[in-house]
Amino acid sequence: MEILSRLLDGDRRAVARLMSMAENDSPGAKKALAELYPHTGNAHIIGITGPPGSGKSTLVDKLALFYRTKGKTVGIIAVDPTSPFTGGALLGDRIRMNEVALDKEVFIRSMGTRGHLGGLALKTGDLVKILDAFGKDIILVETVGAGQSEVEVVKTAHTTVIVEVPGMGDDIQAIKAGILEIGDIFVINKSDMEGADETSRELDAMLDMNPENSGWRPPIIQTIANSNIGVDEVVEAMDQHMEHLKSTGNYHKRIKARTRVELMEIIRDNIHSYLIESGQDEKFDSLVDMIVNGELDPYTAAEEFVKPIKE
Amino acid sequence: MEILSRLLDGDRRAVARLMSMAENDSPGAKKALAELYPHTGNAHIIGITGPPGSGKSTLVDKLALFYRTKGKTVGIIAVDPTSPFTGGALLGDRIRMNEVALDKEVFIRSMGTRGHLGGLALKTGDLVKILDAFGKDIILVETVGAGQSEVEVVKTAHTTVIVEVPGMGDDIQAIKAGILEIGDIFVINKSDMEGADETSRELDAMLDMNPENSGWRPPIIQTIANSNIGVDEVVEAMDQHMEHLKSTGNYHKRIKARTRVELMEIIRDNIHSYLIESGQDEKFDSLVDMIVNGELDPYTAAEEFVKPIKE
Repeated sequence: MEILSRLLDGDRRAVARLMSMAENDSPGAKKALAELYPHTGNAHIIGITGPPGSGKSTLVDKLALFYRTKGKTVGIIAVDPTSPFTGGALLGDRIRMNEVALDKEVFIRSMGTRGHLGGLALKTGDLVKILDAFGKDIILVETVGAGQSEVEVVKTAHTTVIVEVPGMGDDIQAIKAGILEIGDIFVINKSDMEGADETSRELDAMLDMNPENSGWRPPIIQTIANSNIGVDEVVEAMDQHMEHLKSTGNYHKRIKARTRVELMEIIRDNIHSYLIESGQDEKFDSLVDMIVNGELDPYTAAEEFVKPIKE
Repeated sequence: MEILSRLLDGDRRAVARLMSMAENDSPGAKKALAELYPHTGNAHIIGITGPPGSGKSTLVDKLALFYRTKGKTVGIIAVDPTSPFTGGALLGDRIRMNEVALDKEVFIRSMGTRGHLGGLALKTGDLVKILDAFGKDIILVETVGAGQSEVEVVKTAHTTVIVEVPGMGDDIQAIKAGILEIGDIFVINKSDMEGADETSRELDAMLDMNPENSGWRPPIIQTIANSNIGVDEVVEAMDQHMEHLKSTGNYHKRIKARTRVELMEIIRDNIHSYLIESGQDEKFDSLVDMIVNGELDPYTAAEEFVKPIKE
């Protein structure tokens, strides 16, 4: 496909176009992604999540800049509706200018979260793969940490960074608990605010109780992203995490886990599209009629419909 | 099943238990729901949605009370994490007391939205059917109007009520636009606040531009639910909407549309469960291995996996 060869040749517009195709499920998108797939697998994919107001976007901005000084190319995917990167997605604003937005070697893409329910992780994964094939060394995926969908998104990352701010209080503990297992690195941003050390200690205690860390103890790093303080430490931790993955065989395990999630997502999406098509279908329609007429219940009907795949 | 006959005999504990089974996908839940299905179809199902702070829960409370004075039995399902009904679901609080909570003929159930991503509409539909079979005349489903999932939830209702408050400003317009097509009745609650008439006029103008209303012009009703003002009018509008559905043949159309959505949801859930099982499966596993080893891309693998269902 022409768009693919243009993308592999470094054409940024081809990247943007293929991303739009993937996001909109345009005809040809799946085929292009399938052909692009063999060119992926080289980027370090980093998921960055945390509550609104934790300064994730600033951190992402500074991380990208720091990677650039090290000569790495960077891609950013922001799926956070509260992020300045995605301002456009929710409110119709134009994307606000960030420092990295001026750097040609940094490719920034924002994704709206609306209308993607369930498929958000899949779409994010598609965009990640496009940037990966495009040759970006580092891909930062920024999501707002507020629920299941973010957890799904970070499952597609090699390294997951959880951003907190000092003293978030009791009602955040519940969210922390849910997100604790998925964090490879914890950042306490805005650490000049009161309570940074206490939040670090609390987090540390929670990590102590967390049994599953497969030889990697998630570091807790205090940053003031605004003033560029601690950003280098975060990058170092991310590099170390990748080294850890590779040296322990956990890399392969994580790739396999990611692939599993991804394959499930694509299958689900595939079936979803098929269902929407078959909504117009006679077979589906006759099942609906039988249910409406009281001849069949929908649970039995669904069982009938799915049977072929199970055989 | 014993639980079914107890439910049909009016045992509230059987209702609660079956709801928990359905929510948790317990063994036997699907079978029970299939057997219960023929007993459904008698309730008037009303979806009530709107932004946090619009006073939905108070309105739901007052609507239920008003229906009770008319001798109707009522079920309430609250899937709104900001609702006092669902306080327990998010923050671990106990359910705060509402007026109707003291009435034995009103069955209230709250649902957490976490962990239900994608399946929320399905689970809500299951709970609705349980209350329907239990013999409730009116079922009020309260959701917070913030996105796709709520739209999915209200698709399972006969009548959809959108609650707004006066003067919500520009950033709410976008949300309004998305929700406009699904509203059968619009309520401006807290209409003693400044700007109620203006918001009504704006909404009215927006409805004028909305082409699809199939013979039903959604009324706009100003209420002060707190003081029980306008609640009777809302109930009257809901009754009229049901009469309209029945007298025009739109009832059958809506039932068919609902059944279609529902069947798709159940099929999707079914396949989801199957996928999770087959994640342990050799066939699935060998596909994952082939992808990890670069012998196959996940898009082609998904195609292979889904093929049998399409034949």
